[in-house]
Amino acid sequence: MAMTMTQKILAAHSGRDSVSPGELILADLDLVLGNDITSPVAIKEFRRLGKDSVFDRNKITMVMDHFAPNKDIKAAEQCKMCRDFCTEQEVTHFYDVGEMGIEHALLPEKGLVTAGNAVIGADSHTCTYGALGAFSTGVGSTDMACAMATGKAWFKVPSAMKIVLTGSLRKYVSGKDVILHIIGKTGVDGALYRSMEFTGEGLSSLTMADRLCIANMAIEAGAKNGIFEVDDINLGYIREHGGAEPVIYKADEDAEYDEVINIDLSQIEPTVAFPHLPENARTFAEIGDIKIDQVVIGSCTNGRLEDLIAAAEIMKGRKAAKNVRVIIIPATQRVYLEAMEMGLLRTFIEFGAVVSTPTCGPCLGGYMGILAAGERAVTTTNRNFVGRMGHTESEVYLASPATAAASAVTGRITSPWEVMEA
Amino acid sequence: MAMTMTQKILAAHSGRDSVSPGELILADLDLVLGNDITSPVAIKEFRRLGKDSVFDRNKITMVMDHFAPNKDIKAAEQCKMCRDFCTEQEVTHFYDVGEMGIEHALLPEKGLVTAGNAVIGADSHTCTYGALGAFSTGVGSTDMACAMATGKAWFKVPSAMKIVLTGSLRKYVSGKDVILHIIGKTGVDGALYRSMEFTGEGLSSLTMADRLCIANMAIEAGAKNGIFEVDDINLGYIREHGGAEPVIYKADEDAEYDEVINIDLSQIEPTVAFPHLPENARTFAEIGDIKIDQVVIGSCTNGRLEDLIAAAEIMKGRKAAKNVRVIIIPATQRVYLEAMEMGLLRTFIEFGAVVSTPTCGPCLGGYMGILAAGERAVTTTNRNFVGRMGHTESEVYLASPATAAASAVTGRITSPWEVMEA
Repeated sequence: MAMTMTQKILAAHSGRDSVSPGELILADLDLVLGNDITSPVAIKEFRRLGKDSVFDRNKITMVMDHFAPNKDIKAAEQCKMCRDFCTEQEVTHFYDVGEMGIEHALLPEKGLVTAGNAVIGADSHTCTYGALGAFSTGVGSTDMACAMATGKAWFKVPSAMKIVLTGSLRKYVSGKDVILHIIGKTGVDGALYRSMEFTGEGLSSLTMADRLCIANMAIEAGAKNGIFEVDDINLGYIREHGGAEPVIYKADEDAEYDEVINIDLSQIEPTVAFPHLPENARTFAEIGDIKIDQVVIGSCTNGRLEDLIAAAEIMKGRKAAKNVRVIIIPATQRVYLEAMEMGLLRTFIEFGAVVSTPTCGPCLGGYMGILAAGERAVTTTNRNFVGRMGHTESEVYLASPATAAASAVTGRITSPWEVMEA
Repeated sequence: MAMTMTQKILAAHSGRDSVSPGELILADLDLVLGNDITSPVAIKEFRRLGKDSVFDRNKITMVMDHFAPNKDIKAAEQCKMCRDFCTEQEVTHFYDVGEMGIEHALLPEKGLVTAGNAVIGADSHTCTYGALGAFSTGVGSTDMACAMATGKAWFKVPSAMKIVLTGSLRKYVSGKDVILHIIGKTGVDGALYRSMEFTGEGLSSLTMADRLCIANMAIEAGAKNGIFEVDDINLGYIREHGGAEPVIYKADEDAEYDEVINIDLSQIEPTVAFPHLPENARTFAEIGDIKIDQVVIGSCTNGRLEDLIAAAEIMKGRKAAKNVRVIIIPATQRVYLEAMEMGLLRTFIEFGAVVSTPTCGPCLGGYMGILAAGERAVTTTNRNFVGRMGHTESEVYLASPATAAASAVTGRITSPWEVMEA
């Protein structure tokens, strides 16, 4: 039977020749991920299972990224529980303050995921690794607990949505604009429980940062996962980062798709998702004069080196608008160091921004930039639900690093095209 | 009548020829300081006074440093109240995210305090500016409110304790060791309501960072203020930072002191204050094998460039001990930028530390490194009271940047002499 990329990976991981949409399967996992918020719940559940040890100490990873360095006593206790568990179980890939990064930026960077892998993580944006040609998806902490014990997870095989990309992006337009445009078309449940499979000749113009960002936000369209066809770009990334030998699953020519969306990348414009849903995507013809209080550039969506380069290009030699707080969050320690070596951090500080330790922080209203009632932020994060970054009467506008930087210059939501052509 | 430095400044600011210890006086103020925690209370009180405007918009400063970038909704609302007030009152020196720093590092750096000034701040470590030859002391938010309205504050003239310094410090020993040694001798109330007046030929060997650190912790001996004789070193610092014309008040030869303490700087050793009081000072002969979980280098006490240089010298080419979280907090944006230019931040990241935005954060248990039950931190901050940095069952050990860095290398409380002679 003809299969999509996702279906082929799931078949291979469940010891079958083929699987069909809707089937329930038990799949072997290559990696099980948790963070400082979700792992403590999973650890408690794992203890209840009565198992002495995890299925494979090299295939579990815990990343202290949400509220670390510890934002409060509860966060401290949660990180401590993870640290103690990983010490006890001799978990190889435990990432704490100092070696850490935001999980979905860190794992690809550390070479922990490769093409053809099946990965689950107790975090909704685990779908990011689809950019590497892996099947990866977010689960609850109980699933994580069972997976830590057995190395397996149950899945309903998803049907698929094919996204065919053509053309190439214009200057100052990036993967973030692409995925906001797509979610604008599909709505936040348009891809519900489907896999979003990205293909087409336009792929060749998308960087890994673009792809990781696009796969990361597949969940915001309701998708089970997002996945990119494997080509020289993601293979090159995997090799550069020391990932395991890739296994390439290419969709069959006659694979079935519920829906096919064609996107001409050259037509994508700087795009902003208005409160309070990622589907409220608008281009600048529909955006008026919206004053802002804060700009955040970072997160698992847009905290990579390419994102900081894009922001710095716009900030260089300019100053932050008065009364706009600008917070830059390199996604990992490595990104931080590389950005420093390239002079980007200098540009940010001279612009009037602060540079944070790697953390999820403000994205989920944790810390490092929480909003008061009536305040507005332009942010490169992935969700703009009511109260997501603070007070329920605050507003979050999702945008690319270039748009966020341009907005920091003017103090209102601004297209990078406006600032860079001025 | 013969007077001390502090008494002369208070006399000059209250229009008198002389003042005596115990007298109540109303003094004119050169600067009134608040932060994001204390200013909101002061602003509310100011409103109750029924005044339309502050006494002098150039002599008030508010610094968003404790919980900014906003750690939670309450912090966001507090910063917003300060921001709105300073906009309304056209306060010149409002420091927000991006231009900020920890108040007691920032004000000297910005040249806002000069020798001979009388300064109050709604923060206990306002005594820091004594290093510049100013009278400065911490007050409550209500005093701040009245001072914002009138430009004046009531004081009881303090009696004095004279601290005569001789000799010079040995390598890897700094002002922090000196003040911990002194508090170890006096106890935390040994200088209660007195001024601590630092003088002697040993002064010439103390850097501004040493002096600012020592004056900063005068409050931990219970002092009303700490003050340094004015010499070429603090005059040079004031000129370099664009401070106003200094006025030098030298103590009379026959000024009265309750107590005179002689300190031979060459005898000071690396010193650590054990839980749960700064007076529990010990040198390494009395320190056993104490395992640690976290190291913090920063704060208004020890977050200056010289402090980061001292830490980096020890960290360079080494790695943080396993399971020790190392958090470096440059005190201001300028310190951050200078430390980056000097390659110190690179050293920290390669060591395995994280570098935070300028913030008071963990010092007062705010965020950015809170401790769980049973955890221990070595920190360059100024207080080690029960629960100061998190859980009431955690422990805080106060030390110099060099000792904190050496401890980060070994994972136990360690003298810099041990690591640097190894």
